[in-house]
Order: sequence, then C-alpha cells, then structure tokens
Amino acid sequence: MSNPSPIPAIALHGGAGTIAKNSLSPEQEKLYHAGLAGAVRAGQRVLEEGGTALDAVTEAVVALEDYPLFNAGHGAVYTRDGKHELDASIMDGRTLATGAVGCLRRVRNPVRAARAVMERSEYVFMVGEGADAFALAQGLAEVENAYFDTEGRYAQWQLVRAEGGTALDHDAASRLAANRKFGTVGAVALDRDGNLAAATSTGGMTNKHSGRIGDSPLIGAGCYADNRTVAISATGVGEVFVRTVAAHDIAARMEYAGASLAEACRQVIMEKLPPLGGRGGIVAIDGAGNVLLPFNTEGMYRGWARVNETPATAIYT
Amino acid sequence: MSNPSPIPAIALHGGAGTIAKNSLSPEQEKLYHAGLAGAVRAGQRVLEEGGTALDAVTEAVVALEDYPLFNAGHGAVYTRDGKHELDASIMDGRTLATGAVGCLRRVRNPVRAARAVMERSEYVFMVGEGADAFALAQGLAEVENAYFDTEGRYAQWQLVRAEGGTALDHDAASRLAANRKFGTVGAVALDRDGNLAAATSTGGMTNKHSGRIGDSPLIGAGCYADNRTVAISATGVGEVFVRTVAAHDIAARMEYAGASLAEACRQVIMEKLPPLGGRGGIVAIDGAGNVLLPFNTEGMYRGWARVNETPATAIYT
Repeated sequence: MSNPSPIPAIALHGGAGTIAKNSLSPEQEKLYHAGLAGAVRAGQRVLEEGGTALDAVTEAVVALEDYPLFNAGHGAVYTRDGKHELDASIMDGRTLATGAVGCLRRVRNPVRAARAVMERSEYVFMVGEGADAFALAQGLAEVENAYFDTEGRYAQWQLVRAEGGTALDHDAASRLAANRKFGTVGAVALDRDGNLAAATSTGGMTNKHSGRIGDSPLIGAGCYADNRTVAISATGVGEVFVRTVAAHDIAARMEYAGASLAEACRQVIMEKLPPLGGRGGIVAIDGAGNVLLPFNTEGMYRGWARVNETPATAIYT
Repeated sequence: MSNPSPIPAIALHGGAGTIAKNSLSPEQEKLYHAGLAGAVRAGQRVLEEGGTALDAVTEAVVALEDYPLFNAGHGAVYTRDGKHELDASIMDGRTLATGAVGCLRRVRNPVRAARAVMERSEYVFMVGEGADAFALAQGLAEVENAYFDTEGRYAQWQLVRAEGGTALDHDAASRLAANRKFGTVGAVALDRDGNLAAATSTGGMTNKHSGRIGDSPLIGAGCYADNRTVAISATGVGEVFVRTVAAHDIAARMEYAGASLAEACRQVIMEKLPPLGGRGGIVAIDGAGNVLLPFNTEGMYRGWARVNETPATAIYT
C-alpha cells in the first residue's frame, strides 16, 4: 500500500465550526491565514530537511499552540473556574506508538508533553497534575497557568458565563459575533519514508467543568495514524467523535471495507456524525500523499502544502 | 441484524494475565469463583426482571468493584504515591451514549460515576478532582481514598516497589506468587429488547505514576458497545489496547469486513495484539446472544450466564 516515493506533505486545522463569511473582518482573516501558513511552514520545513512526519506534526502543532488565535496552548479557552486545562495527543503511523495528555495546567506546549509520554514513559495517556509533573520532569518548558490567558478568550468566557452555557468550539461564534478566537488544532503529515503521523491539541470547550476531556487526546477519536491507511486529526463536537471513535472508524472503513480515503471521510463526516450532533471536521493524509480536509460546518481553519510548495490556507467552504 | 427475541445474557471478567494453574490455593480459587458468580448473578437479576443491559453491566461491575479480590473499587492497586486512582467507562449500544472517568480518588463505585457522566453531564469523559467533584455533586457515595486499601494489594505494592517496577495487571503474578489479588473488571450484556451494553472499571497498574490512564476508560479501546455489532470489555496491557483501538477494531471488522464475532476476536486478540506486547483478553456479546471470552494469556477470571441459568465461572484456559 505504501507509495515507493511519496512527496512529503502536511495538512493542519485550527478548528471547525460556525464561521459565517461576514463574521471576520479582513484584518482578522489575514491574521488567521498568517497563523495557519506559519504553522504549515513549520511542519513543511521539517519535511524539506528530510525530517519525520512525527517531527513535522509536532512542530506544526507547537506553532498553532503558540499562536494566540487558536484554542490550544497560548490562547486556550477558559474553564468554569477561570483556568486553562489543556489536552493533546500524538501518534506515529509507522509503529502505532502514541502519547496523550489531559488537563495539563503548567506545560507550555501540550503536544510536546504528549510526545514525551509516548517516547519517555511506559504509558500512553497521562492526565492532571501527574501529567504536568511527568512532563516537567522531562525538561519541558513550564509556564504559569496565566500564560495561556488572552483578552479575547476572557471576553468570550464572560459572554458564555452570562448565558450560563458552554461554548462548543467554534459554535460559540453563532452567539459571539464580536469574538471568534477559538478552535482545536491538529496536523497530519507524510514524510519521504512513507511514514504518517498525526497530532491534536486543544483547550477544550469554553466554560467547561474542570476535568472534562473531549476527543482531542483520545486515540481513535480525535487523533489516529496508521501507515497502512491514514493519519487523521479531528476538530468539532468532541463528545460525538468519542462515541463514534471517529478517526479510527475512517481508517477501519479503508482497511476493512476497501473504502477510498474520500469515501470513508464522506461516510463518517458527512453521513454518520451529523445525525448525532457531530459537527466538525478533520484533516487527513494517506500514504500516497492524498490530502483531504472535509468538514460539515460552515468553515474550518485549515492549511496544507507539499514540500517546496507555497502553503495554501482556507477558512470557509 | 438484531435478533427478534434474544435470550438476555451477561458475561464479565475480573482481569487476565499470568495465572499459573498451581499458583492459587483451592481456597483462593473458591473465593475468585464466588466473586465472579456473585457479579454474574447481580447482572442476571437485572435481566431476569426485564431490566436493561445498561443496568445489568452497571450492577455486575459494582459487584466486582465491591469485591476485594479484583483490581477495581475496593481492592484497587496502589499508585507510586501509595494512593488509589480509579478509571471506569460505560457504553449504551442502543444510542452509542458513553460516559467515562479517570483518576477518581473519592467515589466509591467508579462505574456509577461513569454512568453519571453519561446521563447527567454534557460530556463523555471527566478526570481527576473535577470528575470526583462532579460525581459527588450527583449524590454518589463518597469514601476516603483509604477505603480502597486492602492488605493484599499493599503487600503487592511493596514487592513491586522493591523491584522498582510497575506491575501490569495480572502479570505481576509471575513475580508475586504469594499474592495474586489483581485484575481489571468489566461486563457486557444483552437484554430482552436486543440492546447491548458494556462497562469496564480498574485501579490500573500497581505502582503507576499518578495520572496514568490505560485503556479501561477509553471508548473504543477498553470498552465499546454498538447494537449493530458487539459489546466488549477488555483487560490486559492497556497501552496496546489503546494503540490498536482494540475494542472498536473488533466491531469494525464485523461491520466492514463481515467477520463473525469469533473471527474478529481471533484476528485482534490472538493475531494483532501479541506482536505488540498486547497480552490480555476481552468479554464480548453480540445481538444474537453469542458470548465469547477470548484471551491470549494463561488465564482470565471470567463468568457468564443467560437468564435463569446457573452462572458459569472459569479462571484458566
């Protein structure tokens, strides 16, 4: 199934949801496109230097975590307690090795913590203070929880609190026209050796109960990679992606039903998820370098490129 | 696919691992069989009274949690810090509704907390102090962490600490001949309406790092139920079950490749998992009432019965 000489490529997302075309100013759109393109370039650079898909998705997600407009790392949403709790995951399609973290509060880049769990522990998933302590003991950069604060997210949280609700990813946008700074992030890549990798990172839902975990750090739900089929990172209403084991379901349809990447994506993202309330999307890449970025919402912040190409970015359908 | 008049049934496990036939005294074996049979009856009673598969797996797992010989609830293993951190999950095959908890320290019956997350929150997974707080706010029974203490587990922990290792489920048994009180628990059931359900609960690995989560609370890995295919609860080396999304993989082989329950179980438990170090087993039931309890280890504590049958229990191959 593996392509003898695939062209390395990367695709990523900064979240999906209700992103009406008239809701972002030209200046705001420009900032989103810049953030997406910068992250694509970070991953692309790794691939152009002959690096691994695993390193490419790590660096792309770190760039998205560090960019304040996306809901991961700096710029993450607020919990009900006014804090930030961060989840992330990573998977190596060559070995099926995985690492994930949930409810981090003190590690600057959660995706690096997920990778540390994968490479430097006997575990695949760690959460809470134990996960923070493990990651920091590995030498990862520590920050105060307030490092993740941004004014935009704070204003969003205040609006959601006033409504007494919980904003699900970008769907808060329907109510929060003044502030559209949210979104899970993730990346998938194919390297020159034909290996796939995926990574996902998020601050979760605005005003979430402390301890809530969605699909982002759950292998098979919000992140999956297997060289034999596909690498996937998901974004959207995490609970439905968990219930349907959405990322693994796409891979399984390819492996067991012989579906193409496009067919499997359509069956899951366009047909299976919506009746369950599963609004969202994914970025996916297969071993031949086919990239798909399907979503069943009004928009998804996304970007992609092969090596030595100018990154493409998009927001709306 | 659904059977018009299925005979309700339940199957459960108390963990799999290296359980050599000469390692348990007749008195110890008797206690294990009694615990398994009691849990089967707890679930069977629900089904005989016309209750749901969801209630049956809940009551069976509560019985296993309360029984001190199994590694879940009272009798859970110790973390590196000398505490207990408990994980559990539940899934309704009719609706694909799920709930899961990780790293609980204060809720007496983790499977009830998982069910509360499913039925009384907008989430599917909660961990740590936030999960404890949520569950207790729902009126679930609270205990001190020391409630989960047992002398046998303490002795086991001391032995593992002395060796500087981490005991994976029952495989500690190979080193800890004097004390074999360990094991994840789980149950699957089919009710008279043809609905499937699954639940899993565990104390995890002996001497685990605080915050470590294995497959037990991860939907698709250690627990899965879908009326169209199968209900599964897994036990074993959790990390490999996570990496392979083992429970969902069995369901997917049935749904997409047309594999029988037996074929899908063999392909995953006997062929796919062992090369990755995935020692363990599962209990599974399909909509026709077919029960399978495959494992690739020396033994698995297990029990099963249809309604109005005497519960069958077994330990070795």
